[in-house]
Parts: sequence; C-alpha cells; structure tokens
Amino acid sequence: MTYARQMLEAHPRRTATEAGALVECIEACFDCVQSCVACADACLGEGDVDMLIRCIRFCLDCGDVCVTTGRILSRQTEFDAGLARAVVQTCAQVCGACAEECERHADHHEHCRVCAEACRRCEAACEEVLSALAA
Amino acid sequence: MTYARQMLEAHPRRTATEAGALVECIEACFDCVQSCVACADACLGEGDVDMLIRCIRFCLDCGDVCVTTGRILSRQTEFDAGLARAVVQTCAQVCGACAEECERHADHHEHCRVCAEACRRCEAACEEVLSALAA
Amino acid sequence: MTYARQMLEAHPRRTATEAGALVECIEACFDCVQSCVACADACLGEGDVDMLIRCIRFCLDCGDVCVTTGRILSRQTEFDAGLARAVVQTCAQVCGACAEECERHADHHEHCRVCAEACRRCEAACEEVLSALAA
Amino acid sequence: MTYARQMLEAHPRRTATEAGALVECIEACFDCVQSCVACADACLGEGDVDMLIRCIRFCLDCGDVCVTTGRILSRQTEFDAGLARAVVQTCAQVCGACAEECERHADHHEHCRVCAEACRRCEAACEEVLSALAA
Repeated sequence: MTYARQMLEAHPRRTATEAGALVECIEACFDCVQSCVACADACLGEGDVDMLIRCIRFCLDCGDVCVTTGRILSRQTEFDAGLARAVVQTCAQVCGACAEECERHADHHEHCRVCAEACRRCEAACEEVLSALAA
Repeated sequence: MTYARQMLEAHPRRTATEAGALVECIEACFDCVQSCVACADACLGEGDVDMLIRCIRFCLDCGDVCVTTGRILSRQTEFDAGLARAVVQTCAQVCGACAEECERHADHHEHCRVCAEACRRCEAACEEVLSALAA
Repeated sequence: MTYARQMLEAHPRRTATEAGALVECIEACFDCVQSCVACADACLGEGDVDMLIRCIRFCLDCGDVCVTTGRILSRQTEFDAGLARAVVQTCAQVCGACAEECERHADHHEHCRVCAEACRRCEAACEEVLSALAA
Repeated sequence: MTYARQMLEAHPRRTATEAGALVECIEACFDCVQSCVACADACLGEGDVDMLIRCIRFCLDCGDVCVTTGRILSRQTEFDAGLARAVVQTCAQVCGACAEECERHADHHEHCRVCAEACRRCEAACEEVLSALAA
C-alpha cells in the first residue's frame, strides 16, 4: 500500500490522465528504481561480476530514469502532456532494454529474475499511461 | 507489494541489518519520496500557496533525502554501517521536520495530512534501522 | 573547471561519442540541474509566486530530467546509443520548454533570465550530442 | 563557470550563509556527483573490476548523497540551518570515506585519482559551509 492514490485524490486540480493508470505507473516506477538499484548492487556482489557488467550498467540507467519518471508523474499542477509523453516513452524504452538484459541472467540469478519482472511491469504501466495520454 | 524483500533475499551477501526493519525502511523511503513530491506539487496548485511556502520547501528537501536513503539502503555489497547510520539519521531528522510542517496544514489540506503520515512512518522506520544498526 | 573531461579521458573504454560534445553536454546538464532547482526555489520566495506556478513546475521537471541525463552520459561502459538518444532527446525537449517559460519572466526576475540561459545552453548541448550520435 | 553565484545573487531572500562558501560547496557537490558516477562506471569497465567492488559501492553512495546536498544547498527560501547542517555533515563524511577508498587505487587508475580529488574538494567545501553555519 502506497500513498499515491490518496495523494492524487487530494490534489486541488483535476488529473489530466485516468487516475488508475497513473497510480499504477507511479508505483511501478518507484518499485523499479528500488529493484534496479538493488539488482546492480547484487550483481556487484556476485562471483561472476565480469559476466554482469552490461546488466549493472542498464540497471543504473533504468533506476535513474524511473525515479525521474515517478517524480514527474507525481506532479499534476500545470501538467504538460507533451513533456509527460516524452518522459514516459523514454522510461518504457529503458525499462524494456533493462528487462531484456536481466532476463538473460534470470536462470542463474534470482535478483535478475525479480528485477526483470519489475522492469516489465513498469514498461507495461508506461504503455498504459501513453494510451491514456493519447486518448 | 514491492520487490524489496525479494531483492534482499536474493542478494548474494548476508544482510548487515535485520531484514524486516530494512525492507520496511526502504519501502517507507520510496513512499515518502512520492508523497513529498506530490504534496509540494499539490501545495503549488492551492489558492493559498502563499501560506504553504515552508511546506513546499520542506517537502522538496525531504523527497531528495528519502530517495537517496532508499537507494543507499537498497545496497548490501560492501555495506558500511557508519555511513548508513549517518544517512539514516539525517533522513529521520528531515522526515520529522517535514511531518511537523505538514501537520500544521493537515486540517485544511488532505494532501498535507497524508504526507505527514508518510513522513512519520518513514521517520519511525529510520529509527528502527538505527536501533538495528546499533545492535 | 569540472572533472568531466579528465574522467572521460581516464576511462578504460573508448568513448562512443565525440568527447568535446559529450563533456559540454554533461557539464551543461549539471549546471542546468542547479539553475532549475535554484530558480524554482527563488520563484517560491517571490511576492508574486502566484504568477510563477508554471515556471516552478517546469523547473522541477527540468532539474529531474537533467540530473538523470548528466548521470547517464557520464557512463561509457556498455554504452547503448539508442538509449542515450532517447534520454538526450527528451532532455532537449524539456530544457526547451523550461527555457520558454523562464523567458516569459526574464524581464522581472533575474533568476528566470539566468535559468533560461542555462536551459538554452543545455538544450543546444543535447542537440550537439544527438548530431554526434547520428554520425 | 557555473550559474550558481548568479542564481544566489538573484535570489529574492537574503542568503543565510556566507555566499562564497555556499557557491563553492554547491559547485563541488555537483562536480563530485559527476566524478563519482563516472568513476563507478570506469571501474566497471576495468579488467580488474573484482578489486574495485568497494570503490564502486562508495562512488554510487557518494554520488547520491552529493546530488541531494547540491540540490538542498541551492535552496534559500525558508532555509533551516539545522537540516542544512545534518545534510552537509553527512555529505562530508561520505565524501571522506569515498576519497579514502579511491585513493587506494589512485596509482593504478587515473579515474580513481581524479575522483578522490573531487571528493576531497567536496569534503573540504562541506567543512567550510559547516563553519559558516556555526558562525
């Protein structure tokens, strides 16, 4: 249980996007930051870190993009659909790329399997917001 | 449901702190980032924004400190208890100050009431981690 | 004088992009974070804060996007041109929008004039990197 | 040349701290973010990455703490000396620890030498701000 829905409902201005898609995407972004930061760190602690360099790199980037996306989607005042679209589209792309890389190591490293799941969920939530913004 | 516990259990190295306190604190930190960013934004959208300047300022700072604390606690490789303590202590202090300010506006603005709750929960979770680190 | 060029030259792997454009963009991104955070804060301290809500909102978003872009461009290991392009393109767009808004208040508020300058410089530096990545 | 001094001089409220120390610290924080992110990445690209795990970990933490400190010090509206002190003190500690670790690898890796320099400069700038805040 996060506070994202309560915060959205308490906002003085009307939400530009369908609230359900927005709440899901905000939560997915912050969950994805955590997973990506933790996966990069877990990879660093593995004996075969040499095989995980690309995975660490993608997790670091994905964590950075997701925290920015989660923050921007949390703002409803003077909402600009064009900017939101650009940010969310980039986030979907980075999450997809990170998921693909983590999936390569999912059989050997449980943290990569979980992180890929978090990235795929965030990618899908971004696509939902993009559909809602286009409607 | 976040992935924080799964990520922690999948980590190749042993956790330095009691896992329950750590997971709760990581989740509370990321929830608090979201609440603080959203509260600062909601305050900006209010008609009486002039009365909420200090609240906005504290929410911006608290959001920044919580995202850093959440990221640092998500890392277990080469964990340094002294650094963790300094970061978590600062986070508890900033959350306490932000909660106090938000509580002043809780009767007039529901988003301040919810944000104060998120800050108090994060402050308490930080105190738990500090106790665990001292043990 | 920042350390960006020295860090790039000390990197064990060859840089994917022309170093000059990259260094300029990294420095412009971090300068823009600072200006945007400071401009949002200065706007909050103005007597006519009601007229500056959109400016504050855009500065907050722009600061978040620029810090992520500056971090991602600082990484050269397992560089992915497609991801870099998406991030830098979004950054250019957000900087352009923020500059446009700040320019509206540049005659009344010196901090908006300076911030618009920082945003335009970052927007141009992003365009240079995009050209270099396409080459 | 950054915009930090211009932004500070354009602020509608009086600066709580001596401007020179503040500007130097803000610039040192953002330079340190860049160096730490780039050093963690350069370490990842080295053949002896196994020897650099602790260095990567400390650089990641230090980069996160410095970006938060740089952002918070960039805000002057409703400045709270107690919070600033806690944040800057933590930043000095993290920079000192990161510098110490980077210095261990400075003879073999130029990026560690440069990053240690950036961390030491930021640590010293934080100490200056702490003195100014105590005055």
